Amino acid sequence: MAFLFLTGFLVGWFARPSGVQHDHANDSKLLDFLNEIQADNIRQYLRKFTQLPHLAGTEQNLKLAKEIANEWEKFGLDSVELVSYDVLLSYPKPEQPNYISILNQFGNEIFNTSLTEPVPEGYEGVSDIVPPYNAFSAKGQPEGELVYVNYGRTEDFFQLERDMGINCSGKIVIARYGKIFRGNKVKNAILAGAKGIILFSDPADYCAPGVDVYPSGWNLPGRGAQRGNVLNLNGAGDPLTPGYPAKEYTYRAEQDEGVGLPKIPVHPIGYSDAVHLLTNMGGPHPPDSWKGALNISYQIGPGYKGEFSKQIVRMNIYTSNQVTRIYNVIGRIRGAVEPDRYVILGGHRDAWVFGGIDPTSGVAVVHEIARSVGTLVKKGWKPRRTLVFASWDAEEFGLLGSTEWAEENAKILQERAVAYINADSSIEGKRSDVCVYQMYLIYIQLNSMKQMLEISSPEPGEETMTLYDSWHKRDNWTNERNAPRISKLGSGSDFEAYFIRLGIAAGRARYTKNTKTERYSSYPVYHSVYETFELVERFYDPSFRRLQAVARVRAGLIFQLSDSQLLPLDCVEYGAALHKYTLNIEAIANRHPDAISRYNVSFDSLLNAVKNFTSAAQAFHQRLNELDRYNPLEMRMVNDQLMHLERAFIDPLGLPGRPFYRHIIFAPSIHNKYAGESFPGIYDALFDIENAPEQDKAWDEVRRQISIATFTVQAAAMVLMPLA
Amino acid sequence: MAFLFLTGFLVGWFARPSGVQHDHANDSKLLDFLNEIQADNIRQYLRKFTQLPHLAGTEQNLKLAKEIANEWEKFGLDSVELVSYDVLLSYPKPEQPNYISILNQFGNEIFNTSLTEPVPEGYEGVSDIVPPYNAFSAKGQPEGELVYVNYGRTEDFFQLERDMGINCSGKIVIARYGKIFRGNKVKNAILAGAKGIILFSDPADYCAPGVDVYPSGWNLPGRGAQRGNVLNLNGAGDPLTPGYPAKEYTYRAEQDEGVGLPKIPVHPIGYSDAVHLLTNMGGPHPPDSWKGALNISYQIGPGYKGEFSKQIVRMNIYTSNQVTRIYNVIGRIRGAVEPDRYVILGGHRDAWVFGGIDPTSGVAVVHEIARSVGTLVKKGWKPRRTLVFASWDAEEFGLLGSTEWAEENAKILQERAVAYINADSSIEGKRSDVCVYQMYLIYIQLNSMKQMLEISSPEPGEETMTLYDSWHKRDNWTNERNAPRISKLGSGSDFEAYFIRLGIAAGRARYTKNTKTERYSSYPVYHSVYETFELVERFYDPSFRRLQAVARVRAGLIFQLSDSQLLPLDCVEYGAALHKYTLNIEAIANRHPDAISRYNVSFDSLLNAVKNFTSAAQAFHQRLNELDRYNPLEMRMVNDQLMHLERAFIDPLGLPGRPFYRHIIFAPSIHNKYAGESFPGIYDALFDIENAPEQDKAWDEVRRQISIATFTVQAAAMVLMPLA
Repeated sequence: MAFLFLTGFLVGWFARPSGVQHDHANDSKLLDFLNEIQADNIRQYLRKFTQLPHLAGTEQNLKLAKEIANEWEKFGLDSVELVSYDVLLSYPKPEQPNYISILNQFGNEIFNTSLTEPVPEGYEGVSDIVPPYNAFSAKGQPEGELVYVNYGRTEDFFQLERDMGINCSGKIVIARYGKIFRGNKVKNAILAGAKGIILFSDPADYCAPGVDVYPSGWNLPGRGAQRGNVLNLNGAGDPLTPGYPAKEYTYRAEQDEGVGLPKIPVHPIGYSDAVHLLTNMGGPHPPDSWKGALNISYQIGPGYKGEFSKQIVRMNIYTSNQVTRIYNVIGRIRGAVEPDRYVILGGHRDAWVFGGIDPTSGVAVVHEIARSVGTLVKKGWKPRRTLVFASWDAEEFGLLGSTEWAEENAKILQERAVAYINADSSIEGKRSDVCVYQMYLIYIQLNSMKQMLEISSPEPGEETMTLYDSWHKRDNWTNERNAPRISKLGSGSDFEAYFIRLGIAAGRARYTKNTKTERYSSYPVYHSVYETFELVERFYDPSFRRLQAVARVRAGLIFQLSDSQLLPLDCVEYGAALHKYTLNIEAIANRHPDAISRYNVSFDSLLNAVKNFTSAAQAFHQRLNELDRYNPLEMRMVNDQLMHLERAFIDPLGLPGRPFYRHIIFAPSIHNKYAGESFPGIYDALFDIENAPEQDKAWDEVRRQISIATFTVQAAAMVLMPLA
Repeated sequence: MAFLFLTGFLVGWFARPSGVQHDHANDSKLLDFLNEIQADNIRQYLRKFTQLPHLAGTEQNLKLAKEIANEWEKFGLDSVELVSYDVLLSYPKPEQPNYISILNQFGNEIFNTSLTEPVPEGYEGVSDIVPPYNAFSAKGQPEGELVYVNYGRTEDFFQLERDMGINCSGKIVIARYGKIFRGNKVKNAILAGAKGIILFSDPADYCAPGVDVYPSGWNLPGRGAQRGNVLNLNGAGDPLTPGYPAKEYTYRAEQDEGVGLPKIPVHPIGYSDAVHLLTNMGGPHPPDSWKGALNISYQIGPGYKGEFSKQIVRMNIYTSNQVTRIYNVIGRIRGAVEPDRYVILGGHRDAWVFGGIDPTSGVAVVHEIARSVGTLVKKGWKPRRTLVFASWDAEEFGLLGSTEWAEENAKILQERAVAYINADSSIEGKRSDVCVYQMYLIYIQLNSMKQMLEISSPEPGEETMTLYDSWHKRDNWTNERNAPRISKLGSGSDFEAYFIRLGIAAGRARYTKNTKTERYSSYPVYHSVYETFELVERFYDPSFRRLQAVARVRAGLIFQLSDSQLLPLDCVEYGAALHKYTLNIEAIANRHPDAISRYNVSFDSLLNAVKNFTSAAQAFHQRLNELDRYNPLEMRMVNDQLMHLERAFIDPLGLPGRPFYRHIIFAPSIHNKYAGESFPGIYDALFDIENAPEQDKAWDEVRRQISIATFTVQAAAMVLMPLA
């Protein structure tokens, strides 16, 4: 088994014989473009952009924005601008650091957690390294007994309360990072009545076996900790201006009425500190699935045992929120034929510290793509449609830069945007035999994808193999299809506002990990000070050929989407996916056979709508055979149908209680933002069914959600039907 | 002063020199089309369609749907279909009629209101005439003292409670029809604590001076009464399926959770009955503005005076709601060049009884337009864009047919609909020196409008004058412009879902009354059994040339919108209107100078956005000079900007508490559905400011609404800016 590369992807699924010949006029231009993309440039950009921290809202991140804008202009983009918003950010107080203490019976601090992470070699002189904190934590000094809540998932709290009989009310809970978005852990802790929550990185989740900690290896050092925001924004963007761009004229809610702000203190620690807090805990022993890899018993609490039973924990959190100016960089290459059709390549620029992987492995790739496309433009080429490059700010604070821009431009984007390709971190795994990361969709035709991937594999020993074959070999899908795996898009990065709120077809592509063998959540040093250039250069991609491959895939996507005469999308595969997702959600409902029959819950209408969708899609692709490709209006009308298909899955009313999560198929579920469930409305209605106070109402809601899904799929089918 | 015709209109405002030559290729076709439209056909259709009642949900109205569908097919439309929905309707119980009684001290009924209206001559044998009732009234037999509440407006209840010190809690209130939508009267009564509300037609509002009652004249007979629904739907459509089409698969709310259903009984009576209920009322004498034209004192109550003081009133209401199938007729003529662009002409078919004016004066006109356009089609002509003809059902029950169809087709309509022209009643006034009724918009260029109106005036003695000149002569606008008056579109007819929810440019056109001299609300026999063919033939339009003129105006609009190469719309005038509306709303705010300054309320940002909008519009029309009219994609892109401009005024979040009223400029205000206020969000926030429990919060909401309006206007400006 070789050391292999991975690539993330948009789109894809099978090839469908569309009948329409792919236009080959731009094929050589595609190759020119992809060949222009150089590993060494990416290395240099990564080096240059990771010298200093680039926290959102800081002078250094504005400076980087200006630098990127200047270079994009030099590269040959038609226009580049900085677009600013004044959003709510959150910083620790430099003069009053956050920490957690163990107090003895006299109230004295007998143990305090670290105030900072040890700075890696070569970065000792760097100032402005923000210490580990959870952005938007409430301020406060809660004291109390500790309860260990495993990952802090809904099911963990259920187990705690029901099976173990432990009440978290008035306690400080401690949860390990991983499995779900940290903001959901905090929300669950609040619902359980906790007055504070500590998040720690357990070696079980943040260290790979047999690997050294950084800098000797790529595992998380004991004193490393994961920064990160703990909002529950549900796609709202700036907490004070939900639904509207945070401009100077914009009305702002009072800070205590901001969307998604937690009401309790939250703080992250490393496992060196966690061991101290956890070691002497009393209470029941946990089930095995609750045990991490520390050499402790992982007892649940509440509080400490035996001689330590008088000890309690105090959190000391002084982090404060402030409205701060952020800056997106927006660059454009005007489309030569259809300037009013936009293909957007966007990724964030702000980093918690150096951002070696997150996001700068993405920033460097976007930069090299911009340079390469600029080279083509300087030679006289223009894409058919407009290309938009975006360097987002404040992604780490809740996807703020990308969401505010989406809000400001919502009306033109929903009418004009063909696709959004996300360019966050380019890698998240070290090496693997699995090759493709989250790809959402159905969309890009396999032929078109193969064509983009006819570049050579970056993997040692595979120089003669295409990227497509290399990927396909490692991650063949199922017996159902002869094509590599395409995952769902998920949530939690800057595509959210574009895909989940506005319904713009979206994709992402990155080099991923093998989820079977690499069980840690994200990558070990994620959001720590150890995300450096050296981390990537030494461990993740020494040759930078993997980043180059990711760059080429992202570049290929925006090229095909912006320059193909006919949008290279395949609606029949969307239908196949809808069918699969419907069967999945039906299977979840069928865990309650009695209720299904008693409450008259049926998926027939939804399955029928999916069938109609697939028929409409087949007929649509069939009609492409008769298309007059020399008739610009005919092409435009067909492309408009393809562009608007994704829009049809948007419900302006949003999901229950979440007005900005509007994608009926692919919005995240309430219970696990990252799970990427399909049909989240139905899923959420089913999730709590056993705990619902009134079964009638709960099953009513399931039926209502099935009805909404049915309508939505049916309406999407209409988009593909004959025009009049 | 001559007897004059009136016409309602779409669009218009001033002519703007757009730079682009109007394409004259289709001018002669326009004239062919308009000349095809015959007064005598309209007369015959009106005669035929008003023989029987066509209440929504009845067999007779389905039969009419089928008849219309058959004829549209014969006329030459490309396709015609019946589209059904199962919506909540409301009917009185035939075996248990509704009435109101006066009870003496022993609880005996000493007076009962009429169960029916006397049927007009010639219709004696007609069955299925529904007696006067208020659809969706709650059932019940409330008893109590009567309170007279004038028109039942917010300000009337304020005056009652504050100035007169009268509490309506537990009372039955009696309000006269007029000024505002009856559903708002009911809502206000409920808020005031009333347990029932009686609505009556006062001669002051439903009889013109010196005119006989029907059949000798066109005034309302004493035993005539106004039917009508009393919902507060706020654009939701079917009360049980808000936001989604009421199909077989659709989830339905429980009836007691339906949107907008009143919780108290409501019943309408004529003035012959009202006099009995009102004559002996005690309590304070009212201000003059509360006095109608009955020969009584209009005392406020509560209850009766002197020897009658033991008498109370009882309502006996048995009306019940039931889910019922309704049918729209949808006909299409496929666009030859851009089949995916739709121009819709829609009007309702259902009538309370015969519907001589409402809606059949509209139905007959649409029918003649369909016949005429079919004649052109049979000769080989096709419009550039697709024409959609719609005969809506159940408008009288809350705009249900049109709203359900809009819901079912929302996703394609918002991407493809160019304009919606409403075709409800074609006349509402007898004669007048004012000529144009509600026109919404800014839009159609004056040149284009003049061109459509180059047909001859229908007014006696004006045979040589154009319709345009005849109208212009009677209703010159102001000194600001040399063009006839265009009113705002308002609300309360089938355009609501298209215009106010989806943001499709919309217009209406009808022959109206002179609001200065004809002070009655709507027309006197509105929604009574006396709305017959003979009413129109004898009094409103004996020659049927006025209906012909209305037909030609509506026909001209759909022709210009569907066939002009460049959409004949003028965005600069939208800017001028926005400026005017902004100054109006600012003037309302300025009634509170102290608060404005204390709470830092400023309209500068909104005025600035309006200025940006106007600049963008001017530059847009300027750029049209350089347009290559032979480049189909360039034309399409410019037309798309024009089409999407109206869409930009839609906020998917809706107005506060009214998720389906989404048009930030033109949604109706909470306080008066028909007032046609602009900037309803700001207006509503200002309306209650003096009564708000917390001034800080109230002014905060004003600021928030100004911010939303600013964003919306700014975003609309972006639609008109250069494309990339």
